[in-house]
Amino acid sequence: MIQIAVLGYGIVGSGVVEVIERNNAEVSRRAGEEMHVKYILDLRDFPGDPYEEKVVHDYNLILEDAQISIVCEVMGGVGDAYQFTRQALEAGKSVCTSNKELVAKHGAELIALAAANGCHYMFEASVGGGIPIIRTINNAMTPERIEAVTGILNGTTNYMLTKMEQESADYEEVLKQAQALGYAERNPEADVEGHDACRKIAILSSLMAGKNVDSEKLYTEGIKGIAAADFAFAKEANMTIKLLARAKLMEDGSILAMVAPFMVPKDHVLAMVNDVFNGVFVTGNMLGDTMLYGHGAGKLPTASAVAADVIECARNQGRQILCIWEETEAKLVDVAESERKFFVRAKRDGGKAVEDVFAGSICLELAEYPNELGFITPVMKERELQAGCEALGDLILNKIRLM
Amino acid sequence: MIQIAVLGYGIVGSGVVEVIERNNAEVSRRAGEEMHVKYILDLRDFPGDPYEEKVVHDYNLILEDAQISIVCEVMGGVGDAYQFTRQALEAGKSVCTSNKELVAKHGAELIALAAANGCHYMFEASVGGGIPIIRTINNAMTPERIEAVTGILNGTTNYMLTKMEQESADYEEVLKQAQALGYAERNPEADVEGHDACRKIAILSSLMAGKNVDSEKLYTEGIKGIAAADFAFAKEANMTIKLLARAKLMEDGSILAMVAPFMVPKDHVLAMVNDVFNGVFVTGNMLGDTMLYGHGAGKLPTASAVAADVIECARNQGRQILCIWEETEAKLVDVAESERKFFVRAKRDGGKAVEDVFAGSICLELAEYPNELGFITPVMKERELQAGCEALGDLILNKIRLM
Repeated sequence: MIQIAVLGYGIVGSGVVEVIERNNAEVSRRAGEEMHVKYILDLRDFPGDPYEEKVVHDYNLILEDAQISIVCEVMGGVGDAYQFTRQALEAGKSVCTSNKELVAKHGAELIALAAANGCHYMFEASVGGGIPIIRTINNAMTPERIEAVTGILNGTTNYMLTKMEQESADYEEVLKQAQALGYAERNPEADVEGHDACRKIAILSSLMAGKNVDSEKLYTEGIKGIAAADFAFAKEANMTIKLLARAKLMEDGSILAMVAPFMVPKDHVLAMVNDVFNGVFVTGNMLGDTMLYGHGAGKLPTASAVAADVIECARNQGRQILCIWEETEAKLVDVAESERKFFVRAKRDGGKAVEDVFAGSICLELAEYPNELGFITPVMKERELQAGCEALGDLILNKIRLM
Repeated sequence: MIQIAVLGYGIVGSGVVEVIERNNAEVSRRAGEEMHVKYILDLRDFPGDPYEEKVVHDYNLILEDAQISIVCEVMGGVGDAYQFTRQALEAGKSVCTSNKELVAKHGAELIALAAANGCHYMFEASVGGGIPIIRTINNAMTPERIEAVTGILNGTTNYMLTKMEQESADYEEVLKQAQALGYAERNPEADVEGHDACRKIAILSSLMAGKNVDSEKLYTEGIKGIAAADFAFAKEANMTIKLLARAKLMEDGSILAMVAPFMVPKDHVLAMVNDVFNGVFVTGNMLGDTMLYGHGAGKLPTASAVAADVIECARNQGRQILCIWEETEAKLVDVAESERKFFVRAKRDGGKAVEDVFAGSICLELAEYPNELGFITPVMKERELQAGCEALGDLILNKIRLM
């Protein structure tokens, strides 16, 4: 029998217990051994909870119990979670986590620590919730040079952008809706400013490069600047707007990665990833394009991903699970030097100055926005676009990259 | 060093050699050991081919070479391929295949034979080409009870249906186009009659049930009966038509599986799977809905899937890879007893007889087809619909299931 401990009895933690106990026949069959949750670590008590007798408050109980070979860290944060993870790995207990902040910050170090102690650090649930993107990169795309990953990796902002498109609504309006439904937090910054998606693309980029990509160094732009007018122009151009987390592996092994709103053609499969769903579009040099789609968050989908990691640990006791993410820092490409097309929305009364700057662009006009013009530029460097927009000052209302 | 043999130097076989040799850095790194193709078995010679010196004609050379631990069977068919596979497995050599016909027919037996001989029978490339659906079921969805799989698993027919929709063209017209482009074979029956998709859903159903699902017992209907008029009515109902391979795991462990054209709502993600692409929509009891999308065929995507299997074999020498597919036959549900909505296209001059049979249905009328009526029925049993249509004889022009 394999016994596990769950650290943190919040939404994901209670989901992990539920998946392992409710689907115990499936879980134990695939693990090759009966599997049960022995401890749940939390500061609180849970009187009346069906698993209340498993709740403990002292982590040392878990660390010192030789029957515990796998620990699920679903507490979040980088304080206690980091210490607890290190201690478990040093004690030879594998750790499975949904904690993207910790994985983005200390992934390489914890993978190495696990390997040194003959156990595993697994983090399928840290990116894309129930979408098996980590396993797909590490186990399925093994013969591939993965050239690019483009993901809709944050359900909250995707829900908001979908509503903005469907209801021609403005940002503030849909934020309130999302908060009322519990999709957005009262302090929504981590989602709407793109930090959550940034951590996830840093994790995926690190796996693409095999080296560490520091999430704090990635260009990150959120969705606060997106207005109903942007969606109106996008529609005119047969596009929609999505918050994309993108990473490209360059010929020399360096990584170009960023998070920003992008205009996406309506006939691209990523345009079909709506509401709280996530999607990850991966391009391999042999495989071509592939996409994975599913629930990017939520109690049971995330818990299922953690449980899949637990099963993989159970099946691989005493041997290595393939995961190449070294502590060396990957070389990052300066986003300002990258090239693409842009959508720019400008005041119509800019007259010749605006027209001069966007000379080679396609110009869009909309009856509903008579005082504005939309431009779709030719391919240009980010810094060229930036310079052009700066010269026009407040004539520029918004600019959005094209996918 | 791990040395492999490739059986069959056709499209997929040459792709396998290309993936392993061109992406050798990635392949060897992930395999944990240098990996090379030592032999290519084919009846023909390939003068001038870069790998011509690897070509051999005698399979015994491969069987008797102790250096060969992995064999890629990409010959196709169930004659020699079956014998060669058995011989390799009996010699303790793992076999990786793209041969869906053989996997559908003898999968359970060959998996058991591999296990008995301490090696592996791997078949990622047999379903969905480059889409890692087998690995997702076997490795990622391990804590799940997989309740349903709905796949667009045949690129040829998906290409044809996409063209029929986009160009309002008839079946015969697009078949000629597809043949001219090399997407359809001169004898297209295996694709257009649904047999190819049927083998694939039999494989996926077997993995869902953990028992053997006999492809020959599955209800299979192809796309020959689909006309331009059907797409016109589908459009009116905001739907499209896809050839779906579906399997549902019932409460009692029995399987309801079939291949048939279905009307799919335009806002469902499967409706976005166009041209030669494949998509597999999977529902787990914890995970909810997930979809995998990608190239369902083609030299390099299929070869990449074979190579991923080769790497997994290399990393798992002497130990088991999880794959539950027993030789016991799964219980199948009679499709006639299953319930759903249907689209029925009938002659308008059927008058009251037609209207009586489709009393509770939504009726569609199209100016372009003034002599026809479309009906979308309420949920009913297949056999009830069948009986209603039989009573109306040749007043019924076509009937298509709704997803």
